[in-house]
Amino acid sequence: MNRSDWPFLTPGIPDFYFTRDRVPLTKEEIRVLTLAKARLGPGMTVYDIGSGTGSLAIEAARLVGPGQVLAIEVNPVACSLITENARRFGLNNLQVVAGAAPAALAGLPAPERVLIGGSGGHLAAILATCHEVLLPGGVMVINAVTPATLSTALNFGQGRGYQVAAVSASLARLEPAGQAHIWRALNPVQIIQLIKEK
Amino acid sequence: MNRSDWPFLTPGIPDFYFTRDRVPLTKEEIRVLTLAKARLGPGMTVYDIGSGTGSLAIEAARLVGPGQVLAIEVNPVACSLITENARRFGLNNLQVVAGAAPAALAGLPAPERVLIGGSGGHLAAILATCHEVLLPGGVMVINAVTPATLSTALNFGQGRGYQVAAVSASLARLEPAGQAHIWRALNPVQIIQLIKEK
Amino acid sequence: MNRSDWPFLTPGIPDFYFTRDRVPLTKEEIRVLTLAKARLGPGMTVYDIGSGTGSLAIEAARLVGPGQVLAIEVNPVACSLITENARRFGLNNLQVVAGAAPAALAGLPAPERVLIGGSGGHLAAILATCHEVLLPGGVMVINAVTPATLSTALNFGQGRGYQVAAVSASLARLEPAGQAHIWRALNPVQIIQLIKEK
Amino acid sequence: MNRSDWPFLTPGIPDFYFTRDRVPLTKEEIRVLTLAKARLGPGMTVYDIGSGTGSLAIEAARLVGPGQVLAIEVNPVACSLITENARRFGLNNLQVVAGAAPAALAGLPAPERVLIGGSGGHLAAILATCHEVLLPGGVMVINAVTPATLSTALNFGQGRGYQVAAVSASLARLEPAGQAHIWRALNPVQIIQLIKEK
Repeated sequence: MNRSDWPFLTPGIPDFYFTRDRVPLTKEEIRVLTLAKARLGPGMTVYDIGSGTGSLAIEAARLVGPGQVLAIEVNPVACSLITENARRFGLNNLQVVAGAAPAALAGLPAPERVLIGGSGGHLAAILATCHEVLLPGGVMVINAVTPATLSTALNFGQGRGYQVAAVSASLARLEPAGQAHIWRALNPVQIIQLIKEK
Repeated sequence: MNRSDWPFLTPGIPDFYFTRDRVPLTKEEIRVLTLAKARLGPGMTVYDIGSGTGSLAIEAARLVGPGQVLAIEVNPVACSLITENARRFGLNNLQVVAGAAPAALAGLPAPERVLIGGSGGHLAAILATCHEVLLPGGVMVINAVTPATLSTALNFGQGRGYQVAAVSASLARLEPAGQAHIWRALNPVQIIQLIKEK
Repeated sequence: MNRSDWPFLTPGIPDFYFTRDRVPLTKEEIRVLTLAKARLGPGMTVYDIGSGTGSLAIEAARLVGPGQVLAIEVNPVACSLITENARRFGLNNLQVVAGAAPAALAGLPAPERVLIGGSGGHLAAILATCHEVLLPGGVMVINAVTPATLSTALNFGQGRGYQVAAVSASLARLEPAGQAHIWRALNPVQIIQLIKEK
Repeated sequence: MNRSDWPFLTPGIPDFYFTRDRVPLTKEEIRVLTLAKARLGPGMTVYDIGSGTGSLAIEAARLVGPGQVLAIEVNPVACSLITENARRFGLNNLQVVAGAAPAALAGLPAPERVLIGGSGGHLAAILATCHEVLLPGGVMVINAVTPATLSTALNFGQGRGYQVAAVSASLARLEPAGQAHIWRALNPVQIIQLIKEK
């Protein structure tokens, strides 16, 4: 199969389409919920901070063209993966920005949307920096796998007058196990949506 | 606010955009996962069986144009709601089919995609009928809130040679409660994806 | 049926055994997990702070005799319910302390175990006060339904050198719905266990 | 630490107390819920079918003395583990029955309680056999990790006039990950409780 052959409009590209080595991958179902909460549309500029394998960035790039996605990622191995994965999907509106946020965000075009999947422990600073450049009515979506991330994101959003929503997702996939099918859990993720005033 | 103003490409229209009276509504996050598993794209013909308020049908219709969505629904009150909701979103590729599946499916154009949110206890018969008309490579997605539905859908898919996958979604939303925000659970849903051989 | 007839040693008295009016009730399954994390045994003194209907206090009292349970509760209606529920189960080692924690804790005997189901927004102060009196090797178990409670409990435990553990419980019960059985979710609860150094 | 030193009355012995090699272990929190649904008390005879490491059998044996627990297990390695684990907890009311259920159940004393954690694909036959010997008012608790097990247990219970209840548990534990704490999911388990008429 040609893995780059994903002709559908709905997000949710299967995980195995992405080359990942041991770089973290946002799982298909979490990606789908994250992109929905980000409310993407044509022409938008999107940051994907802590992009990992670039799975979120790639799905976003397919939806926002002629807009563009900036994938910010500090790990050089991951940066190569993002480039490789983007090439495989034939995308020319995804740009890898090598470096650590928030410093690496300097000079980038102002975004309509910000996705934050990883923050390297600098979430508060990243949110503060993004707040400065996020366009009015813009949306930030943070994926939290730790209580500290959840708490930081909620406190930021409430303190800065964002419209705050969050969903906690405990998902399991049915997987073959011998003759039977067994439920295998994904780790729970809290998806926080912050909408900036217009 | 003009609720019909939903300019985004990603699915996930908020629940309150839909007029629902007391008709069952597929919740936003479940809709998003269901549509992702359905893998929609332009030009497809989609059945939405047990359409309820039509929220899945409406999101699908926005994604498959110039394809069309056939919303099959037995409850007359729900049929009116679907029509009303579709009009509000300015959709002209969504057709309400009043009646109970599988009988009401007779004579409809063959679908690429089938969504089954409600079956009125006739799931096995509905699946058998859809199997006859579903195009090669087509996808059926069943939302199960009971163990019986899950079991029927899995048994059908395995028995007829479909590629079977399923995800169980236990979701909670953060909601205001006085000064605090509390997690409110949605009822769990099992989403079964059945892909027909090409 | 005589609801007070609960002859079993395992916790998990069904919810309907408790008179509750509209006072919050810790659901059976959450009670079971909470009591397990509290590691109860005969002779212990237990605080149940924000006791509500007293369901946790009553289950604890059945397990710690000849030890005693002190149910601290600010709502007078709830205080009456606790007394009524305790009487029905024939317990004489459960004492209701009417008042708001932490003030109401003054003068109470030092506890081996502290359960915190409700804090009226004063969790940090309650934890600090309990920390002073909790016996070495003692255990506190906090039930969180909000991100703020989770965060406060974790920060307290980590800051004061407790052994910290937590489990997040997303549970659903199968309930009759017409001819079928449907999964009905309980709201998710995070149960935080803090063990004090010996 | 002496792992056998577990002086508490509440179930919920931590997983690491049990020697397990690669034999399946019922996780602490699932054990707690399972034992609660089994409603154990002194003097009862309990079957633990598909006992694995014996963790459920050991917790049950601590609660039902002078009653006894019969741990039925087909895997010889697991049988040795159960014996070793039981010895470490100083239990003399736990007997290992080597063999596959239902055949291995022949000649055993009639039980008040039956726990079924594993069935080797013979659940329907095991339930039918247990039904013959289960005392009036007795309780069977089945742990399901597959849709087929859930469905078989529910159909059996409804068909034979049992009082049927079930809870689905999606749990996650907070675990250290570098400087942070991350939520790690346990695989979901459905716990089915069947109560026989008196």
